[in-house]
Amino acid sequence: MNTTNRIDGSQTEALGRRYGPDAAPAAGPWNAHIDLLLSHRSIRGFRPDPLPDGTLETLVAAAQSAATSSSLQTWSVVAVTDPAAKAALAGVASHQKHIEQCPLFLVWLADLSRHRRLGAEERADLPVTAYLETFLVAAIDAALAAQNAVTAAESLGLSTVYIGALRNDPIKVKELLGLPDGAFAVFGLCVGHASADAADNIKPRLPQAAVLHHETYGSTNERALRAGYDATMSAFSRRNGMGDETWTARVIKRMGGIAAMSGRHKLVEVLKAMGFELR
Amino acid sequence: MNTTNRIDGSQTEALGRRYGPDAAPAAGPWNAHIDLLLSHRSIRGFRPDPLPDGTLETLVAAAQSAATSSSLQTWSVVAVTDPAAKAALAGVASHQKHIEQCPLFLVWLADLSRHRRLGAEERADLPVTAYLETFLVAAIDAALAAQNAVTAAESLGLSTVYIGALRNDPIKVKELLGLPDGAFAVFGLCVGHASADAADNIKPRLPQAAVLHHETYGSTNERALRAGYDATMSAFSRRNGMGDETWTARVIKRMGGIAAMSGRHKLVEVLKAMGFELR
Repeated sequence: MNTTNRIDGSQTEALGRRYGPDAAPAAGPWNAHIDLLLSHRSIRGFRPDPLPDGTLETLVAAAQSAATSSSLQTWSVVAVTDPAAKAALAGVASHQKHIEQCPLFLVWLADLSRHRRLGAEERADLPVTAYLETFLVAAIDAALAAQNAVTAAESLGLSTVYIGALRNDPIKVKELLGLPDGAFAVFGLCVGHASADAADNIKPRLPQAAVLHHETYGSTNERALRAGYDATMSAFSRRNGMGDETWTARVIKRMGGIAAMSGRHKLVEVLKAMGFELR
Repeated sequence: MNTTNRIDGSQTEALGRRYGPDAAPAAGPWNAHIDLLLSHRSIRGFRPDPLPDGTLETLVAAAQSAATSSSLQTWSVVAVTDPAAKAALAGVASHQKHIEQCPLFLVWLADLSRHRRLGAEERADLPVTAYLETFLVAAIDAALAAQNAVTAAESLGLSTVYIGALRNDPIKVKELLGLPDGAFAVFGLCVGHASADAADNIKPRLPQAAVLHHETYGSTNERALRAGYDATMSAFSRRNGMGDETWTARVIKRMGGIAAMSGRHKLVEVLKAMGFELR
């Protein structure tokens, strides 16, 4: 478990795929666990094959093993396998076909409802649940848990993709899953066996110098780093038949107009209607 | 990597430690990666020993390999090693001594400032950055990244603990780290070698039936599940010289009054002052 010996070829290759060969950081400690993390790619095509017995429980055990703020465990997960339910959820998420294809669709909840039921049963007011801070803690708890489930799934040869588009219509998701007030679907996660035709190239990321700061924040060299990354991403897009979009163009497309939010600009209003005061 | 053979003894033990022997779920697929995830515990005491060369870069490579919403990469991380800087950050976080002890303190940022600099350089308005949805995406991106770094660190025999208490005073953290507007320290993370006296018992979690829902949300049996977990946690606390606090008592203590938020009830106002409109 604590192997720090370098697996030379695999490490150089893994870093090269993740950053592009020209931007890979110098090699550091390495082992099979880190190799697994570096090999992540989001998959958007699944075979219908069911998962081995007990897979869901193993993924949830991994998820629950993540840290949770003050032991509060302010998250839950709904496992959806029913085809009609997956189709209805896909309807919220711009009809992404992989939601219907995957044998297991996990909906991760920021969940303060359990704590409010506890408060009601114990006749204790829990005013802290009304604050943005607590909603944020719950969303972070859900994310830490989900990421452990992703690592566990990938270690078993399964593939995943997060579905943020459930936030296009959180109230519809609440109705479909019978969520109580105080429970909010932060994102979905498709889990299954990748189909043969699913693109599975590792997507390059910004160079480390653009996201990693030493002691204090700095952005002196950022423009040049971005230009290099734009070239890397443009080449990646071409290789994968996705045009030649740069990262800069993608950011402007996704952040340049409210229409790209697909309804998510209403999140404050929607959360307040769902029992989060966001004080 | 894809070993699904069961490691019988280790699996039963790992599930028993995580849930208590009476509440462990049935065994499912298992391998060394899942065993690593299940073995997580937060550590609050560190030796001063420096980390092997390249450790920071390996952890950041693992972090950047996590999924990121729409490839936007709305997070950054500041690596703090300077003793005076760590002491100042500990001052924000109720003087938690492990922040000063650990050789590497990572501050994970929800960071929209990079995208705004891009917008300014490209003369593109990016109105999407003004919404709560986008702040939430950035916080989730940071959490997914950090959790990968935790897994990588633990695979190298290092220990970690998340520090949510940086949110006690985000404006002070902004000053200390020189953060631009639109960058917010979501949480810190201590990384280092556990000291010999650091408590390292795995903390039991709620039974799976309390957090895992099938097809739709249900809470029928929740009160009985909570009573069982209260007994497990009370015994855990006694074994570890931490009184005999139940989970129910802990939730009421943490959520029952605004004083327990240590300033975090001001988060909306603070974020608005830091360049997040939260529309």
